[in-house]
Amino acid sequence: MAPDEKERCWDSLGFARLDFDRRRRRGGFGETIFGAGKTNEQLLALFRAFIEKDGLPVLATRCSQAQADYLKAQGLAGIDHDPVSRTIIWRPEGQKSAGLLGCVAVCTGGTADIPVAEEAARTAEFFGAHVTRHYDVGIAGIHRLLEQMDFIRQAHAIVAVAGMEGALAGVIAGLADAPVIAVPTSVGYGASFGGLAPLLTMLNSCAEGVAAVNIDNGFGAGYLAAQINRKVCQAARN
Amino acid sequence: MAPDEKERCWDSLGFARLDFDRRRRRGGFGETIFGAGKTNEQLLALFRAFIEKDGLPVLATRCSQAQADYLKAQGLAGIDHDPVSRTIIWRPEGQKSAGLLGCVAVCTGGTADIPVAEEAARTAEFFGAHVTRHYDVGIAGIHRLLEQMDFIRQAHAIVAVAGMEGALAGVIAGLADAPVIAVPTSVGYGASFGGLAPLLTMLNSCAEGVAAVNIDNGFGAGYLAAQINRKVCQAARN
Amino acid sequence: MAPDEKERCWDSLGFARLDFDRRRRRGGFGETIFGAGKTNEQLLALFRAFIEKDGLPVLATRCSQAQADYLKAQGLAGIDHDPVSRTIIWRPEGQKSAGLLGCVAVCTGGTADIPVAEEAARTAEFFGAHVTRHYDVGIAGIHRLLEQMDFIRQAHAIVAVAGMEGALAGVIAGLADAPVIAVPTSVGYGASFGGLAPLLTMLNSCAEGVAAVNIDNGFGAGYLAAQINRKVCQAARN
Amino acid sequence: MAPDEKERCWDSLGFARLDFDRRRRRGGFGETIFGAGKTNEQLLALFRAFIEKDGLPVLATRCSQAQADYLKAQGLAGIDHDPVSRTIIWRPEGQKSAGLLGCVAVCTGGTADIPVAEEAARTAEFFGAHVTRHYDVGIAGIHRLLEQMDFIRQAHAIVAVAGMEGALAGVIAGLADAPVIAVPTSVGYGASFGGLAPLLTMLNSCAEGVAAVNIDNGFGAGYLAAQINRKVCQAARN
Amino acid sequence: MAPDEKERCWDSLGFARLDFDRRRRRGGFGETIFGAGKTNEQLLALFRAFIEKDGLPVLATRCSQAQADYLKAQGLAGIDHDPVSRTIIWRPEGQKSAGLLGCVAVCTGGTADIPVAEEAARTAEFFGAHVTRHYDVGIAGIHRLLEQMDFIRQAHAIVAVAGMEGALAGVIAGLADAPVIAVPTSVGYGASFGGLAPLLTMLNSCAEGVAAVNIDNGFGAGYLAAQINRKVCQAARN
Amino acid sequence: MAPDEKERCWDSLGFARLDFDRRRRRGGFGETIFGAGKTNEQLLALFRAFIEKDGLPVLATRCSQAQADYLKAQGLAGIDHDPVSRTIIWRPEGQKSAGLLGCVAVCTGGTADIPVAEEAARTAEFFGAHVTRHYDVGIAGIHRLLEQMDFIRQAHAIVAVAGMEGALAGVIAGLADAPVIAVPTSVGYGASFGGLAPLLTMLNSCAEGVAAVNIDNGFGAGYLAAQINRKVCQAARN
Amino acid sequence: MAPDEKERCWDSLGFARLDFDRRRRRGGFGETIFGAGKTNEQLLALFRAFIEKDGLPVLATRCSQAQADYLKAQGLAGIDHDPVSRTIIWRPEGQKSAGLLGCVAVCTGGTADIPVAEEAARTAEFFGAHVTRHYDVGIAGIHRLLEQMDFIRQAHAIVAVAGMEGALAGVIAGLADAPVIAVPTSVGYGASFGGLAPLLTMLNSCAEGVAAVNIDNGFGAGYLAAQINRKVCQAARN
Amino acid sequence: MAPDEKERCWDSLGFARLDFDRRRRRGGFGETIFGAGKTNEQLLALFRAFIEKDGLPVLATRCSQAQADYLKAQGLAGIDHDPVSRTIIWRPEGQKSAGLLGCVAVCTGGTADIPVAEEAARTAEFFGAHVTRHYDVGIAGIHRLLEQMDFIRQAHAIVAVAGMEGALAGVIAGLADAPVIAVPTSVGYGASFGGLAPLLTMLNSCAEGVAAVNIDNGFGAGYLAAQINRKVCQAARN
Repeated sequence: MAPDEKERCWDSLGFARLDFDRRRRRGGFGETIFGAGKTNEQLLALFRAFIEKDGLPVLATRCSQAQADYLKAQGLAGIDHDPVSRTIIWRPEGQKSAGLLGCVAVCTGGTADIPVAEEAARTAEFFGAHVTRHYDVGIAGIHRLLEQMDFIRQAHAIVAVAGMEGALAGVIAGLADAPVIAVPTSVGYGASFGGLAPLLTMLNSCAEGVAAVNIDNGFGAGYLAAQINRKVCQAARN
Repeated sequence: MAPDEKERCWDSLGFARLDFDRRRRRGGFGETIFGAGKTNEQLLALFRAFIEKDGLPVLATRCSQAQADYLKAQGLAGIDHDPVSRTIIWRPEGQKSAGLLGCVAVCTGGTADIPVAEEAARTAEFFGAHVTRHYDVGIAGIHRLLEQMDFIRQAHAIVAVAGMEGALAGVIAGLADAPVIAVPTSVGYGASFGGLAPLLTMLNSCAEGVAAVNIDNGFGAGYLAAQINRKVCQAARN
Repeated sequence: MAPDEKERCWDSLGFARLDFDRRRRRGGFGETIFGAGKTNEQLLALFRAFIEKDGLPVLATRCSQAQADYLKAQGLAGIDHDPVSRTIIWRPEGQKSAGLLGCVAVCTGGTADIPVAEEAARTAEFFGAHVTRHYDVGIAGIHRLLEQMDFIRQAHAIVAVAGMEGALAGVIAGLADAPVIAVPTSVGYGASFGGLAPLLTMLNSCAEGVAAVNIDNGFGAGYLAAQINRKVCQAARN
Repeated sequence: MAPDEKERCWDSLGFARLDFDRRRRRGGFGETIFGAGKTNEQLLALFRAFIEKDGLPVLATRCSQAQADYLKAQGLAGIDHDPVSRTIIWRPEGQKSAGLLGCVAVCTGGTADIPVAEEAARTAEFFGAHVTRHYDVGIAGIHRLLEQMDFIRQAHAIVAVAGMEGALAGVIAGLADAPVIAVPTSVGYGASFGGLAPLLTMLNSCAEGVAAVNIDNGFGAGYLAAQINRKVCQAARN
Repeated sequence: MAPDEKERCWDSLGFARLDFDRRRRRGGFGETIFGAGKTNEQLLALFRAFIEKDGLPVLATRCSQAQADYLKAQGLAGIDHDPVSRTIIWRPEGQKSAGLLGCVAVCTGGTADIPVAEEAARTAEFFGAHVTRHYDVGIAGIHRLLEQMDFIRQAHAIVAVAGMEGALAGVIAGLADAPVIAVPTSVGYGASFGGLAPLLTMLNSCAEGVAAVNIDNGFGAGYLAAQINRKVCQAARN
Repeated sequence: MAPDEKERCWDSLGFARLDFDRRRRRGGFGETIFGAGKTNEQLLALFRAFIEKDGLPVLATRCSQAQADYLKAQGLAGIDHDPVSRTIIWRPEGQKSAGLLGCVAVCTGGTADIPVAEEAARTAEFFGAHVTRHYDVGIAGIHRLLEQMDFIRQAHAIVAVAGMEGALAGVIAGLADAPVIAVPTSVGYGASFGGLAPLLTMLNSCAEGVAAVNIDNGFGAGYLAAQINRKVCQAARN
Repeated sequence: MAPDEKERCWDSLGFARLDFDRRRRRGGFGETIFGAGKTNEQLLALFRAFIEKDGLPVLATRCSQAQADYLKAQGLAGIDHDPVSRTIIWRPEGQKSAGLLGCVAVCTGGTADIPVAEEAARTAEFFGAHVTRHYDVGIAGIHRLLEQMDFIRQAHAIVAVAGMEGALAGVIAGLADAPVIAVPTSVGYGASFGGLAPLLTMLNSCAEGVAAVNIDNGFGAGYLAAQINRKVCQAARN
Repeated sequence: MAPDEKERCWDSLGFARLDFDRRRRRGGFGETIFGAGKTNEQLLALFRAFIEKDGLPVLATRCSQAQADYLKAQGLAGIDHDPVSRTIIWRPEGQKSAGLLGCVAVCTGGTADIPVAEEAARTAEFFGAHVTRHYDVGIAGIHRLLEQMDFIRQAHAIVAVAGMEGALAGVIAGLADAPVIAVPTSVGYGASFGGLAPLLTMLNSCAEGVAAVNIDNGFGAGYLAAQINRKVCQAARN
């Protein structure tokens, strides 16, 4: 017997089941699209399906310049494509990002970690967080980090992005009292083993208050930081 | 030239530098003791140093029954030892745990994960969080978890503890909107590789809102969950 | 002394020994061709050798569009090439697929797993199984899977294809009573380590009734599922 | 709000949630107990809970001699403990194993693999399969295996247990047409890496029709083989 | 103080120190060239240096078609380039390969292993061994191997080349009494992990008389087999 | 139908299938026993089965002192137990080792590698090879090795046993023209990873003429060296 | 509150924080640039920022020919680009390298290791060390190394660069009394695993006086060797 | 022919070749003994052989209390055993340690790293270096390290010992200009993987001037630091 159509809150595009219920289930956080590996046509179809459903903003990550160009060429208006973070945000024409609340601090060890950090920052902003950026503050010159700590400490959640040795997350956690979401990056070579080295560093952090997401997963860290930030902001409003 | 003694906020026991400043720096979260590998004498000395400093509660993790027995035999009063989680909490005599606030949900996939989960739960309680426990709700019988979700969804932060395949964290994250702190455990055998399997599962979670701590690191997860919980509760009070 | 030619049931193409006996030895399951790494000429020669032998259908996997185009350009009629699954099936002109029997359910966690799933599905169909497809039912939105379970439970064998965390197989096994053949995919990045993460997840499944094949080995899973399906159908006929 | 008690089909022992619904959901296969890491008291409590529920047979795996002795000393009658496979089967007094149906062949490469093989064999028998044993037929002396193949080919499902190089499963799959459930064992040393070597061998099998379970997981293989066997036998009866 | 020039038996090309003494030290086995990563100019210079030294034959491995074309275009006569094995053998014009002695058997599991096998075969021939080739005799159809064993048993040394599960070496060793040099290949995908799977299989061989060389190292296996073959042939002549 | 009993050349002890045909198939090399993990009773039964069969010498490896004591206590005469190599050799009373032929050189990098080296040496002697021992000649003091090379070069086969960095095999292969069987040992700590480091070193040897066996597999190396040695000696006799 | 601008000794280029204080903090060793992954524009901006700051020489590593061409095309004078080591050194026009002091010996196992060695050598020279080069002295022909030892022994620090088995560092350390900085290279294939094999070899060196840097990290080794060399030279001057 | 006895600078104890030439070859650094795995008798014999040779001090590492007790019980006078570092130093009776020169700084991240650090410190002192100890200065409370940096900067060489995340070495290298010898320790659990995590961290250090030794290899680090220290001190004296 087929499932009751009335109770279905997702629909099929032939290749994907859209989960329209997620926004409710996940506390208002909308669906997002993982662009890597999708054809131009699939990406466009997904954007259109979400837009038609409720017209709320949509975030896509890991999108190439070519994908963004295709969407624009196909007349999809309201596209904001950032090539550094490889993210595309769609918003209804004329609508700006809602007022951003709270604070999420996004830090990187080096300059090569910035694309991942920007994915985190743009994601957190998409989900309503005010974001401060603190890039290239790695531990090889620790004074650069120490000078930024007064700002970083004001965040409700901290995202620490680092490749190579990945020690940044632990150092920050030792200096702040907000949760630190650590993002190892595949930046590096040799015994970095594609990001394994900073991942293990972050998992073995001596300082309390650190948890790690997948290598290069700026989106996941930004989502989690925004989630914490929202909980705090919502509590403050009530 | 020696560092200015006046500015020192840690002291040395010969084998350890105590970090009395941490409580201030980390937003009021006191120092804790990692009991594993410490001699009875070292453990006692650490407890006494913290107690003499300010008389505030102290948490020690990874403590054996023998270590607890030694502390009691040496006349250290106010010891609360839990053999399942291997934690010892010292509180001033007559003082009870302060009123616990907010909510942290601690879940396990199986019964063998309970010691790690209890380490998380006791840690979160030590740092002021109200904790609800949801044990043995692994995905092999998913209805057990679904029945608990209404309770779990009320938490400000969720700790998901699982060994073997470690899928619990991702399933919960797909059903709740609170941050999920995932703790892989070394429960299992063979291709679990000492907890590597559930660790990788958790890092690769498809659902957003999951971050992982080290294998068997119940303390780290409990700390992070309590940190998030406190931020929310503090915001609500202000 | 050379082996007795009369007893030889394989022959040589110069680069390969054909195993014409396999069909008998393996219960009627014919030889198949692994297309990856073969030159156009080798692929054509293999097809022709099998076709000339007995004119029974032939399946080739991991074939590129270019390989398929070459075969057609060389006049090989009766080619059915599916670019998603990268499979080519040859059937005598005018002959359709035999009536498919029983039921194999093929499920995927996400849309990116579909090419591997289609390799499994097409393989199972080639070996005589009726196949139902249940795609994009991963655990990040578990209700999508639960709604499909009534259909999935009717299968004699279930193929569960998933990358990243790979938890799908274990969840299905907990909800069904048919054998689950788990196929980890290399979909993912970072700590997926090319499919190692879902592979370990599947090997550590808490639910009984799961066994795994190699990463991305849709063919192997489809073969095994068809083998089980055929045994059941043959028993029912007798 | 608490879940409706009427709908609960599992109950709690304080440390475990019993899943009494599993038997229905999994096609009549009852609950089993994983004995490793459980205290004598916990093991006894689990046995008693299942026995009181419906009095149907219970299987426990990874049980030590001491655990078996304790159960007997506590007056639990009807215990059948096999020290080689470390399994305990409880049956109502006077009741024998039901008539075993079909055929599962259990093979090992060497003598050191026998404990894992016996766990598989006893599990398959517990779930109603007739089992034939073919031990020490590893590929170092391939004629030992070839002589057994006529028997092995009669099985509905084959369990191939091997450590060290683990090639047995692939050789059998090349010679038979029944599904081969491969069980790598941790037998070996050095570059066996605790069973990783035979696990990889089995996953990379050139012959079709092989899927692997976790290292040393005789129970899982026996379960899966019995599941396949039962499907075939049930089909034959209908 | 500089080394005594008179005693120097190697010379420098600016980028390489030629080891002209090796032939004496290694029992008459000449220097060879590893072509991979060398520029056309470097490869030519190395050939010329060796040819000018004593005019004896030279073997180069891992050479591309482009490298071979360059050597010919530069007028280096006497080049025998085999694109399958990627080897180049230079011999004085008019001189043929010396009479080959003894017997080395080179076997492969599949057709994709042939390039590595040919590197082994050509190397063994270069060093004076008569070579018999037995390709595509993998264990998925064991009768193909059994039929060849009478020939393989006549060899003084056996080279077994196999990817994926890599079980060929152990099966042969169980059936022959000559030393088996096992060569794992990177043929395969997924859990083959670039040849790690067959390497571990070969190192864990149950049958005695197997030793392994590096993944894809046909040259090393051919050299070692020729070394054994020569020792036997030299003993027979004396 | 059961296999023809007349053709059976192995028999069963209940737990093992004896392979009496191996001696013929493997060129006269008899069966050996792997003692590790066997009970005293099993070990005795195996010795007795082989002795009763044909009274030829028997070699057992990985035997403890307790196992040797048991065999003697049970009246098994003719036992030669060497506690360093953990080998037991049984010979008919009054019979000495046959005249040893040829030459196998066994070398170690350090003193801690001696047990593995002695397993190799005793095995090679058991199979008829004259053995010279060259221990503690590792590359940290290369002159120790250089002084021994004149002796080592006289061997028909060389066994190089080394832990930690494992460079001994490659250095010897660069200085000799006999095949080098490399045995990595688990001697070392930390990044030796149980012998993985020397294993990889040996597989990556720059010098030609090296092949490796499993970590700590002195038996395998001694067998292979004896096999090569015998082939050379047999050729010399004919 | 923002950090006091007066105390800032680094500045931002938008994508990088320059650490102008490093030269003081690190004993006069200037900043360097890691060219890999940087755009032409970023690389130029970094060079200009350093040059404008104090006009002291600048070293950039991992630079492509295209990057060097761009810098020259943009009119950056004083560029010394070495394509083998992929380094670019900028010096004020007319200024030559300062007088080089002391001695650093840079050795390689093979010719393929030379690019990494040249990165080390050029780096050491940049930081003021006189460098002697000893290339292609690997252990497959140990006499090549022994002949060079009298020169190598005169160095204050030795850099040993080797891929594949990586034994060079240990052999040199056994023959010299200067610190040996070992650089594993990714030269090799198969079980080299991208340089893991020589890295483990170097970490497990039996000879004292060896420490390792990351795979292919010629820069790091050259820096460290120059640091040691400078300390010795400075001490000699005082 | 045997090597010329006159030229032998090592002798054999039956199980070990003593390398009396090492002191000359390695610049005066005497032989040392690795105690782990040696019998009491072997350890005593080694001490006596060195003492009889020239009466110079002897260092043994990885020695148990039982080994030290045995040496004393056997009348070996002049033994200085330190149970924390597990080192034994023998000096002629009445002779004290020679005046220590220069400065080596030994730092640890935590208290559990102290045994390894003491092995390094005692080793450096044995080889003539003045040592300052800076323990428990890990990055979880970075101010503890910053306060010590003025002292640490005065060292000619720095040993940084750390487990878990192992970030200490990189942070120190960013703040000092002396070479940093990094020692990962096996302190930690879970994803530390026996010290692999800090090892990778140290190899991937962003700061220049770091090289790593094996996990837990305090001896190697102390030796290397003393070697550098001596070179500097010798230069200063000349």
